[in-house]
Amino acid sequence: MKGSRRAESVSDLVASARAGQARAVARLISLVEDESPLLREVTAALAPHTGRAHVIGLTGSPGVGKSTSTSALIRAFREQGRRVGVLAIDPSSPFSGGALLGDRVRMGDHATDEGVFIRSMAARGHLGGLSWSTPQAMRVLDAAGFDVVLVETVGVGQSEVEVAGLADTTVVLLAPGMGDGIQAAKAGILEIGDVYVVNKADRDGAPQVARELRAMLNFAERSEGEWRQPILKTVAQTGDGVSDVVAALDEHRAWLASSGTLAHRRARRARAEIEAIAVASLRRRWTEVGEHDQLDALATAVVDGQSDSYAAADVLLDSLDHHVG
Amino acid sequence: MKGSRRAESVSDLVASARAGQARAVARLISLVEDESPLLREVTAALAPHTGRAHVIGLTGSPGVGKSTSTSALIRAFREQGRRVGVLAIDPSSPFSGGALLGDRVRMGDHATDEGVFIRSMAARGHLGGLSWSTPQAMRVLDAAGFDVVLVETVGVGQSEVEVAGLADTTVVLLAPGMGDGIQAAKAGILEIGDVYVVNKADRDGAPQVARELRAMLNFAERSEGEWRQPILKTVAQTGDGVSDVVAALDEHRAWLASSGTLAHRRARRARAEIEAIAVASLRRRWTEVGEHDQLDALATAVVDGQSDSYAAADVLLDSLDHHVG
Repeated sequence: MKGSRRAESVSDLVASARAGQARAVARLISLVEDESPLLREVTAALAPHTGRAHVIGLTGSPGVGKSTSTSALIRAFREQGRRVGVLAIDPSSPFSGGALLGDRVRMGDHATDEGVFIRSMAARGHLGGLSWSTPQAMRVLDAAGFDVVLVETVGVGQSEVEVAGLADTTVVLLAPGMGDGIQAAKAGILEIGDVYVVNKADRDGAPQVARELRAMLNFAERSEGEWRQPILKTVAQTGDGVSDVVAALDEHRAWLASSGTLAHRRARRARAEIEAIAVASLRRRWTEVGEHDQLDALATAVVDGQSDSYAAADVLLDSLDHHVG
Repeated sequence: MKGSRRAESVSDLVASARAGQARAVARLISLVEDESPLLREVTAALAPHTGRAHVIGLTGSPGVGKSTSTSALIRAFREQGRRVGVLAIDPSSPFSGGALLGDRVRMGDHATDEGVFIRSMAARGHLGGLSWSTPQAMRVLDAAGFDVVLVETVGVGQSEVEVAGLADTTVVLLAPGMGDGIQAAKAGILEIGDVYVVNKADRDGAPQVARELRAMLNFAERSEGEWRQPILKTVAQTGDGVSDVVAALDEHRAWLASSGTLAHRRARRARAEIEAIAVASLRRRWTEVGEHDQLDALATAVVDGQSDSYAAADVLLDSLDHHVG
């Protein structure tokens, strides 16, 4: 009885979210973010409605103008009548808000627009990077019918690499005068960007940032039919160049579909997510078998030389036999 | 018949290694490095003899003098009559040797000393960092009776963090004139070093590197009984200051034991390794069920909206029921 009331309520929420109710969208995101007991039900109810949105990841070091760029992109998409859902991942705090509160307020420009939904999410996640629930929150926005789902992350450590794993198209933002712009680029962002944007292009040093970036990208050989990452210049504050970014995003989306890369990327993403959920579930079992921590006992045996790590792994796997099914 | 010959041969190898035969040590490392079918048997045979060595990780950016420092440390340990096993992890190539060949040749100083064993290992490993087989190779050296096992890694990306996870004591090497010395420190090495060494201390800028490092370390509050990381200065080329490093390493080892941290670190390391082995084994099953890739099929169903990631994870876990045991 309770079960059927719950089911009704989740499907009502999904229906309301799909009908454009922001409150229902917010509620669904809270359910996945809080790992509610309804999480599985929500995920199952969303599934048939997902896969339509263009998921865009936007990343860059602090100070390159991510929030201003997000706001400018929202405006440009809205001018074309497209609905935009935004997830702003805040790595600076285990709670939403915090250091980026100023940015969130700035995004308040779009607060009265029903075609825009903005949500801050804590990056309390696994691996120190994106929140565990980010992919589920993306699905909420996708299922709710947003044409574009923008995921904004501060490029620190692994999170920029993770957002590349989650998004269809990854935009890497740079700016002149950031000592670490090109440094960061060298450190690995060259492998993740589909579109590069040099923001604050009206400042000294912007042409050089673009030039160095171009030199580095040209270093990587590309074969016929591969995507060549454009390097665009914007002044997000005034909106200069933003329409070119939108055009590049659309072009990349079209290339993804025609080349078969979209299906490939999404399948890879789903694989990783399914595995992560399965492993997390197993990890819970391994550490909560009866009263004691099974994995702890095995680790102690390995440290003491009474077992070895392969034999201990076998014991873990054998124990699944009695707990699965 | 074959099985018993194999078992005999592995236990012979372990006995020979423990008797000081370098050839047997090298053969055992090759068996674990090549993921030989004998890997499990080797690991099991080593287990009862492990846990005695002091495992020291040595990491730092290219150019700080890691190989020279390793060589100087070997000399200092040898003067005290301690046997030293060295694993030099080469991240620059999927094969051993490569860019660090010059360094390896320099370490040839110790080639005729039976109390020293040096081995280069490829970092072809999982996660782009340390090789999968590094922990097993460490166990070979430990079981073979080396008093000190030194693991030398170039501090690039994750590998410096990984070596911290593997070692009892982690030494972070810095040097003046490396623009990235303190940069790297900021990026995370402050959390991994137990002992900091400013090498090339006879050069301009060395006092400043030590001062900046001290300022950053003092920033972190430590409670009574916690380890306070020393900052030492060396000129590895001449051996100046190296005996102080050895003394600090011994002091840290004593603190690890008396504080209970040693058992804790080693158990955490064993936990992570057991889990990684179990997950790798499951991953192989998930992608090799019968003729088709089960995980691929599930991922496609999620992308198509016919399933969701939680339901797909359940299918994976249920399938274990039929394959485990």
